[in-house]
Amino acid sequence: MSKNSSNTMALVPNTSNKRETVCIFGTGDFGRALGHKMIQSGYPVVYGSRSTQISNLIPKDAEVLGHAEAAQKAAIIIIAIQRQYYNFLTKLADVLHGKVLVDISNNLKLNQYPESNAEYLAQLLPGSKVVKGFNTVSAWALQSGTLDASRQVFICGDDVEAKQLVMNIVRGLGLTPVDKGSLLAAQEIENYPLQLFPTWKFPIFLSLGLGLFFFFYCLALDVIYTYIYENNNFSFFIAITVPNQVFPAMALTLFGLVYLPGIFAAIIQLYRGTKYRRFPDWLDKWMLCRKQLGLIALAFAALHAVFTLVTPLRAFSSWRTSKQIISQVLNNQTEPLDHTNAWLNDSYLALGMLGFFVFVLLGISSLPSVSNSVNWREFRFIQSKLGYLALTLCTAHTLIYGGKWFLNPEAYKWYLPDIYMLALVVPCTVLVAKCVLILPCVDKPLTKIRQGWERNPRYSE
Amino acid sequence: MSKNSSNTMALVPNTSNKRETVCIFGTGDFGRALGHKMIQSGYPVVYGSRSTQISNLIPKDAEVLGHAEAAQKAAIIIIAIQRQYYNFLTKLADVLHGKVLVDISNNLKLNQYPESNAEYLAQLLPGSKVVKGFNTVSAWALQSGTLDASRQVFICGDDVEAKQLVMNIVRGLGLTPVDKGSLLAAQEIENYPLQLFPTWKFPIFLSLGLGLFFFFYCLALDVIYTYIYENNNFSFFIAITVPNQVFPAMALTLFGLVYLPGIFAAIIQLYRGTKYRRFPDWLDKWMLCRKQLGLIALAFAALHAVFTLVTPLRAFSSWRTSKQIISQVLNNQTEPLDHTNAWLNDSYLALGMLGFFVFVLLGISSLPSVSNSVNWREFRFIQSKLGYLALTLCTAHTLIYGGKWFLNPEAYKWYLPDIYMLALVVPCTVLVAKCVLILPCVDKPLTKIRQGWERNPRYSE
Amino acid sequence: MSKNSSNTMALVPNTSNKRETVCIFGTGDFGRALGHKMIQSGYPVVYGSRSTQISNLIPKDAEVLGHAEAAQKAAIIIIAIQRQYYNFLTKLADVLHGKVLVDISNNLKLNQYPESNAEYLAQLLPGSKVVKGFNTVSAWALQSGTLDASRQVFICGDDVEAKQLVMNIVRGLGLTPVDKGSLLAAQEIENYPLQLFPTWKFPIFLSLGLGLFFFFYCLALDVIYTYIYENNNFSFFIAITVPNQVFPAMALTLFGLVYLPGIFAAIIQLYRGTKYRRFPDWLDKWMLCRKQLGLIALAFAALHAVFTLVTPLRAFSSWRTSKQIISQVLNNQTEPLDHTNAWLNDSYLALGMLGFFVFVLLGISSLPSVSNSVNWREFRFIQSKLGYLALTLCTAHTLIYGGKWFLNPEAYKWYLPDIYMLALVVPCTVLVAKCVLILPCVDKPLTKIRQGWERNPRYSE
Repeated sequence: MSKNSSNTMALVPNTSNKRETVCIFGTGDFGRALGHKMIQSGYPVVYGSRSTQISNLIPKDAEVLGHAEAAQKAAIIIIAIQRQYYNFLTKLADVLHGKVLVDISNNLKLNQYPESNAEYLAQLLPGSKVVKGFNTVSAWALQSGTLDASRQVFICGDDVEAKQLVMNIVRGLGLTPVDKGSLLAAQEIENYPLQLFPTWKFPIFLSLGLGLFFFFYCLALDVIYTYIYENNNFSFFIAITVPNQVFPAMALTLFGLVYLPGIFAAIIQLYRGTKYRRFPDWLDKWMLCRKQLGLIALAFAALHAVFTLVTPLRAFSSWRTSKQIISQVLNNQTEPLDHTNAWLNDSYLALGMLGFFVFVLLGISSLPSVSNSVNWREFRFIQSKLGYLALTLCTAHTLIYGGKWFLNPEAYKWYLPDIYMLALVVPCTVLVAKCVLILPCVDKPLTKIRQGWERNPRYSE
Repeated sequence: MSKNSSNTMALVPNTSNKRETVCIFGTGDFGRALGHKMIQSGYPVVYGSRSTQISNLIPKDAEVLGHAEAAQKAAIIIIAIQRQYYNFLTKLADVLHGKVLVDISNNLKLNQYPESNAEYLAQLLPGSKVVKGFNTVSAWALQSGTLDASRQVFICGDDVEAKQLVMNIVRGLGLTPVDKGSLLAAQEIENYPLQLFPTWKFPIFLSLGLGLFFFFYCLALDVIYTYIYENNNFSFFIAITVPNQVFPAMALTLFGLVYLPGIFAAIIQLYRGTKYRRFPDWLDKWMLCRKQLGLIALAFAALHAVFTLVTPLRAFSSWRTSKQIISQVLNNQTEPLDHTNAWLNDSYLALGMLGFFVFVLLGISSLPSVSNSVNWREFRFIQSKLGYLALTLCTAHTLIYGGKWFLNPEAYKWYLPDIYMLALVVPCTVLVAKCVLILPCVDKPLTKIRQGWERNPRYSE
Repeated sequence: MSKNSSNTMALVPNTSNKRETVCIFGTGDFGRALGHKMIQSGYPVVYGSRSTQISNLIPKDAEVLGHAEAAQKAAIIIIAIQRQYYNFLTKLADVLHGKVLVDISNNLKLNQYPESNAEYLAQLLPGSKVVKGFNTVSAWALQSGTLDASRQVFICGDDVEAKQLVMNIVRGLGLTPVDKGSLLAAQEIENYPLQLFPTWKFPIFLSLGLGLFFFFYCLALDVIYTYIYENNNFSFFIAITVPNQVFPAMALTLFGLVYLPGIFAAIIQLYRGTKYRRFPDWLDKWMLCRKQLGLIALAFAALHAVFTLVTPLRAFSSWRTSKQIISQVLNNQTEPLDHTNAWLNDSYLALGMLGFFVFVLLGISSLPSVSNSVNWREFRFIQSKLGYLALTLCTAHTLIYGGKWFLNPEAYKWYLPDIYMLALVVPCTVLVAKCVLILPCVDKPLTKIRQGWERNPRYSE
């Protein structure tokens, strides 16, 4: 009666030339799509159904039987029925005993039931080996064969052999099984396909709000003010000039917001004298969306770069150049090169390009396959050292861009600061605070706290 | 006699300080390269060979014995001989019984034999545990240590423990084992190293053909026509001007071709009233190369962007600017800013840049590590919503670029439309068809069909 | 008494609703951080400690007991104490017998001890199942929940079930376990978090040295020479003009250095007549950092591209354009278009852009997720064919840029060649050598040698 695990796996080798029969309970959309795909991949498929009449819905080469007969024909039964009908399966408990049941169900909303469907199934049929899987694959994609997105199929289950059998089928269909561990992971796997960029929601709404504010602010100063007081109709500025002031302002502000929570965290830890208390909820959430904020900031920085580079191609730009040159000719004067201006101009361009370059490196390092190939020390180095370098370069770029206009009263239309000054608020705050935090007298206690070794005795319980 | 799987694995712990001996059958190139690498990594290696004389070919530290003696010294035997000599191994069946045989063979062409070499070996020696592996690694790369490409070694086999032992060796050599399941996967693994971008072939040939057509069309209109009728030798247009008309035309046409099969699929499904019938073969193939078409379109769009941005640096460009300004000066007239022109010009530039930006986002989302980290709902959102947004922006960019010339008879050289009009054909077709398909009266039945719930009764069998 | 592996795993299913208790030995920083995280994830945690008094350091919901009592409460014990205190655990050998011990220790420097900490622990307690893990995760990251870097936790161990249990906990904490095989891998896993871009060190230092040389060389010729002999203060050239001569020189030289070791390797193999002897050490090391050299070259090429595209936006550039046009007007002459110049100018721009484009494709193909999805044949094709194509295009770009100045004595300031001529040395050498190597009379013997089939008899031993 001794049975080692290689004997158990010996079920598989015998089938090396023909694939094992798979039973599918339920003839709904996903059941049929999966059946089609399996038949195409060489698996004999038998459907278990209440009625065996509706055969025109079902792939031609599949057999349709009653549930019990169908189940007896296969070691693996795919449960393609909805959770509310699961209790009907308890009648088949004997037939299903020892069989591998694959729960492929999805819910309509997140955490719809207290326990996952797969765990519920496992409770109903304790004698069967329940494996969760296939729910993250789209029926439409299976059907049309256009699996150009992720080919990953998340699998979980408590029985290792059962999981192996299901993973072999996944591979047989040309998909990539990903073992997510025991059935505890079923809740997560069931919630997975219902998400739509959950971590991106707050950063995107924040960007939208901030973007609209900057847009109308800039529109007022650059187009409406000019129209009212200078009687110039520069409405076409809406296409390139105004966006190209909004984009860098967005990029700089959002980039500052990436590093602000780290500053807050350091201050809170210094004040509390311990790292072993949770941050306030808002700070926790903010810290978790830093990567998304940074990527949105990078997107705006990239748009700013392209919108700037395209400047010489604009009709407005060549008209202005012509006008300047012609006015010089008509006045019979040639302007000499203004060296201060050349320095300022070249510096802010160079700083901007270098800042953008380092920012792009940060972006590349946040690609999953790249960040998975660096360790924590390297990741901290990139995010902390390179990140602050990029922020410093971009802030300096904006400061030098402002340059001589900062204190010029003519630059203040309607007594309002120009948009680039608003954009400087957050990054300058971050950089000043960071300078304070790296002073040795502040940095030392903070480092100790973060190594878990220091703690103010007044916080002991 | 009871033996649980942790006892079986106990073979490994005992060797934690010295590595187990590996036997290699065959002293061909790959056998020697693998032996060298194994000896470097601390594995004792013993070669099994017909003659033990040719020792100068073999790594110094390796032993060379007859096949039977060599096999007895190791639990793992690497079969580095060609398939046609496999039947000679049947004589050694007794010695090889229970041993792990690693089939590392490759064929010369795809699907050369009816069954994979590893399955053939397993049939010849049913008492041995056959594992397929190492065939995807290059002997040259193993030898020179320059494994800067993929370090993945695909492994498959029916016996879990045997597979584990081989995977440990793979890890010991500094490579990454990837478990591809049971021996059924051997055919796929054997075909893998023989492929050379199979999914790219059709898209690349299509692009080449289309590109050549556009190039000569554009050459005729821009260089030859100008030479004949305007007596201007603009042959240097071949370097930048002509390519920069071909690139956007290619990008737009190929981008349209990405979405055209989806339109056809929808029409076919609406006509048939079911999604459960296969599409015609040409449509299936077309749908499977949409990602490649899209990436090639993106490459052309990127080239177009760079070739456009470089314009102000061209000698021709600064000569033309000078000429215009000087003629204005000599005529003593200053042209006022043409507001309509400024609007059109800024709009088409802005639309182009935004379209390219969204297109780049699409491209980034198709990187394997990014598309693996989104679920189906998110992938559909990106590909469908963002994709159509990018296509619409790029098409609008081209339409506004054409702008006032569309109906201008002077724009038609030799009565032929300009190249950007040709480029608009496919994307405009796609966008018009898509507009029809999202009308509620068309969209509703299509959605039902795709959910598998509706089917025209006339199609029942 | 028979126990198959699915029975062994049956430990897990019973806990599908509550998670198993985990014991942590040691109340240091990492022990506490891990305990906090586990409690948050629903694991009951019990600490084993010498003194049970210091409870204010420990998460509130955790129990603190003596070592022996704590160990009895859990199947998994996390050893969060330093290696030098491990021998104290031998007293608990009986209690720890059969338990899973998770070694999470890190060393202070690479290869600090002859054997890994985990292997040392396994030797001390042969009755326990030692699993290495968690050491690659940062305590600070665990604590703050900001795991935005890699979520991968490397695991190794000789006992498969023990490893499974630990991997389940890893998954339960929201991290991704990566099985690295048997305990032999512990050394590698312990060294992993101590590395800081080890493969990048040499390429970065080389780039720094080369960059400084080029910078001062260019500064001397472009700024200092001009200041001394032409009395022009072009100090602002330091911001853009000088870097934009250094960047392409760096890019081209480093790109050449990527292919130079391949040339040396071929020459050495041809000379020796065999591929089965190791290359000299310097060549081995050089070959292993080719990817890094290439990526740094790409970074410089990207900087060169951006710094070039920004040219028309520079104050200096528009001043120079104005000056040229005004001087033409004042002299009452209009310069005709110089066709040769237009050809040369457009060609070098087009070649540069195409070269950069192919170079970017090479860069994308070196992203881990992309290079993992191509096989060796495809990788060789990209690296060898596309790489040489990019190098040829970039070299041609620089040659044509030099164009008419090569032999012009005025171009030699202080009798020194311009920087682009220095940059051409390495790539031209590589391309000439490659042309020789692909001559059939050289290529044939080299191919034979690389296939392992030919060998000069004089090298037989």
